[in-house]
Amino acid sequence: MFKKILIANRGEIALRVIRTCREMGIKTVAVYSTADQDSLHVRFADEAVCIGPAPSSESYLKMVNIIAAAEITNADAIHPGYGFLSENARFSKLCQDHDIKFIGASPEMINRMGDKANAKSTMIAAGVPCVPGSEGVIKDFAQCEKLAIETGYPVMLKASAGGGGKGMRAVWKAEDLKDAWDSARHESKAAFGNDDMYMEKLIEEPRHIEIQIVGDSYGKACHLSERDCSVQRRHQKLTEETPSPFMTDELREAMGKAAVAAAEYIKYEGAGTVEFLVDKHRNFYFMEMNTRIQVEHPITEEVVDYDLIREQISVAAGIPISGRNYYPKLHSIECRINAEDPFANFRPAAGKITSFHAPGGHGVRLDTHVYAGYTIPPNYDSMIAKLICTAQTREEAIGKMKRALDEFIIEGIKTTIPFHRQLMDHPDYVAGNYTTKFMEDFVIEKTV
Amino acid sequence: MFKKILIANRGEIALRVIRTCREMGIKTVAVYSTADQDSLHVRFADEAVCIGPAPSSESYLKMVNIIAAAEITNADAIHPGYGFLSENARFSKLCQDHDIKFIGASPEMINRMGDKANAKSTMIAAGVPCVPGSEGVIKDFAQCEKLAIETGYPVMLKASAGGGGKGMRAVWKAEDLKDAWDSARHESKAAFGNDDMYMEKLIEEPRHIEIQIVGDSYGKACHLSERDCSVQRRHQKLTEETPSPFMTDELREAMGKAAVAAAEYIKYEGAGTVEFLVDKHRNFYFMEMNTRIQVEHPITEEVVDYDLIREQISVAAGIPISGRNYYPKLHSIECRINAEDPFANFRPAAGKITSFHAPGGHGVRLDTHVYAGYTIPPNYDSMIAKLICTAQTREEAIGKMKRALDEFIIEGIKTTIPFHRQLMDHPDYVAGNYTTKFMEDFVIEKTV
Repeated sequence: MFKKILIANRGEIALRVIRTCREMGIKTVAVYSTADQDSLHVRFADEAVCIGPAPSSESYLKMVNIIAAAEITNADAIHPGYGFLSENARFSKLCQDHDIKFIGASPEMINRMGDKANAKSTMIAAGVPCVPGSEGVIKDFAQCEKLAIETGYPVMLKASAGGGGKGMRAVWKAEDLKDAWDSARHESKAAFGNDDMYMEKLIEEPRHIEIQIVGDSYGKACHLSERDCSVQRRHQKLTEETPSPFMTDELREAMGKAAVAAAEYIKYEGAGTVEFLVDKHRNFYFMEMNTRIQVEHPITEEVVDYDLIREQISVAAGIPISGRNYYPKLHSIECRINAEDPFANFRPAAGKITSFHAPGGHGVRLDTHVYAGYTIPPNYDSMIAKLICTAQTREEAIGKMKRALDEFIIEGIKTTIPFHRQLMDHPDYVAGNYTTKFMEDFVIEKTV
Repeated sequence: MFKKILIANRGEIALRVIRTCREMGIKTVAVYSTADQDSLHVRFADEAVCIGPAPSSESYLKMVNIIAAAEITNADAIHPGYGFLSENARFSKLCQDHDIKFIGASPEMINRMGDKANAKSTMIAAGVPCVPGSEGVIKDFAQCEKLAIETGYPVMLKASAGGGGKGMRAVWKAEDLKDAWDSARHESKAAFGNDDMYMEKLIEEPRHIEIQIVGDSYGKACHLSERDCSVQRRHQKLTEETPSPFMTDELREAMGKAAVAAAEYIKYEGAGTVEFLVDKHRNFYFMEMNTRIQVEHPITEEVVDYDLIREQISVAAGIPISGRNYYPKLHSIECRINAEDPFANFRPAAGKITSFHAPGGHGVRLDTHVYAGYTIPPNYDSMIAKLICTAQTREEAIGKMKRALDEFIIEGIKTTIPFHRQLMDHPDYVAGNYTTKFMEDFVIEKTV
């Protein structure tokens, strides 16, 4: 087992990794920018090394400084957390070259899964369903008609040069295809000076559902069921839950099997996530694979009694997994508490926290690096806490989240607590009836 | 279901009950003394009524004030927490008389189980093992000899008027009985002017292990396995864990069966605890029954995924239990954090908390009513927080507790955090090798 792990990250995830290391009796090294010297991850690590000024590019993304910090402190492994260097093939390689174990994916794996086209062809080879459509640009309308039948209606026509919805058409039946083809090309030509089109199956009422997997260094993988991350705003997840209210036992079995097949096909080592889009008919399609720990990993931990960071570390140390899959025994919800003003279009709200009172009690977990008196630096992302509530049923978990949000006091800055409190009362959320489009229509009510 | 529950208590347990009520959508009424007006239970309840000045006898024990508060606020039930009026038959009766549901035992049940002799004869009738010995005073040495053989060596001779170990003798074999009998009587006569003696079986290396039970209003009961509460100082529990490191599947089955038999025999309604002494041979003997929620209930909740307060409320509302028993799936430890100075003989240390940082993360639960800026009143007991850590194994739970204690920052007052931190490193504790005598030899090391 490792003797000392350097955590190449900041904030709650740095603290999260330190906690498990302490529990395992492994020494820790924190690295920090000058903006983070008062952060709890610095305080709770056994050692701490300042690696540069506030901008990430000069500290948390500065590979040589981090490698140097590991060498100075004799760390034998580096945990990258999420974001920053966690999916950086060059950094993974640099660790290898310096004989430091990178607790994450190999450079080859990161390259393979980080490139969309590569990842998709790999998944197809592994037998994992991907969103059907054209391979590259459609030659002419005759090919377009043929492809639409092969793909199955509804389909999306998309401009190769597209963006912002321009040159994009949803087509629900064959007789509408010609009009859509013409008008999309016309629009694309006008907007981008190019009318190349490609086609994808239209995913109706899409949900973002991901499968947590763990693979060991002997080619064995298992899954830990799903997380529903459909509640998103501009592709940023706001709240996640497991099990998904949309899930069936059959679908979980099929998605879990596909994710394990994918992991074993590529001999994936460590914790990873296979993200899928699921349509209203419960067809699922591979979206991407994250070769790192996810922000939302705690909800899985709570429902399957499993420490994912501990597992990452032991798998990296060469310990085999049992191979059995894990199924949710409880219901867990995470709310990401951000330093943002939900009543002003989620504008970031850095500043000093003057008062901080954490909710507690049965089924309430809080992962945070902030405290009363802490000043949130404006340099990094705005997430300041993850509130995780777990109970026997979804209804109870929502009830628990409501009372925990009511108890949570953060003064001095704006936070997204009031948004989450309203979300937990939203009839569609309560009914489990939401897709990735949910937030487009969500109106936050100004309360007194 | 109840519409509004008044909580006739203060501190963490009042908050604990409020939390579950909120989660269930039940309105709450807090009562408080003038010393507690800044307490969180007042802040988080829907309504709050001041019931008198600081001394308990004039507020939390003042039955008429509490009943009046319930009537004013239209509460349809009262939850008494633990301590104060929770096992007061008169109060239970008073609630009945005012048509307010007392979420606890009936007056008859409290009387029956509150009187030691009554409780013991009831348990014998229910077939629950009790500590064998003489029924009342031993007539003469001949009877003493006969009793010792019936009871089985080793036995304890005890002075009826005894106390502080005076007139008490442990006797391990028959040939020592006469000397012990003479010297104990002599000592008792000298100390108390009375040489009446009685006999009890000597419990070798006793452990305090209790079984949590829940009974419904239809005569059905179940158990939720054990809690080991052997780590005590002057009969005050300091830390508890479940499962007990001393437990075997067979013993759990037998103790659980006995506890359920006891509960069903007396038609016990609500949550209760049957306390046993267990000797080194794993014989168990009924000690007493508590007809209320216990301080240490959270460790059970954590390992069986069960909200005991929710269950108390639903049973009181007439909802039947499933009847199945619950077995620990994880390991959980609770440390009672008291405002006491462990380096000065646990002297109470009331005062103002100037800084408060709660530990968090995976498997960490904190039940507390205090916060930064809170002044601990000197009028009540010194417990300010319960830190509960839960993990897959005992070893992992101890590791988690150590890191959580290390993270826990309370400034401005002395607390027992350093004691617990040392306890978690004590070789006998780590080995699970402790009895109720453990603290007699525990030396707290002054650290820098």
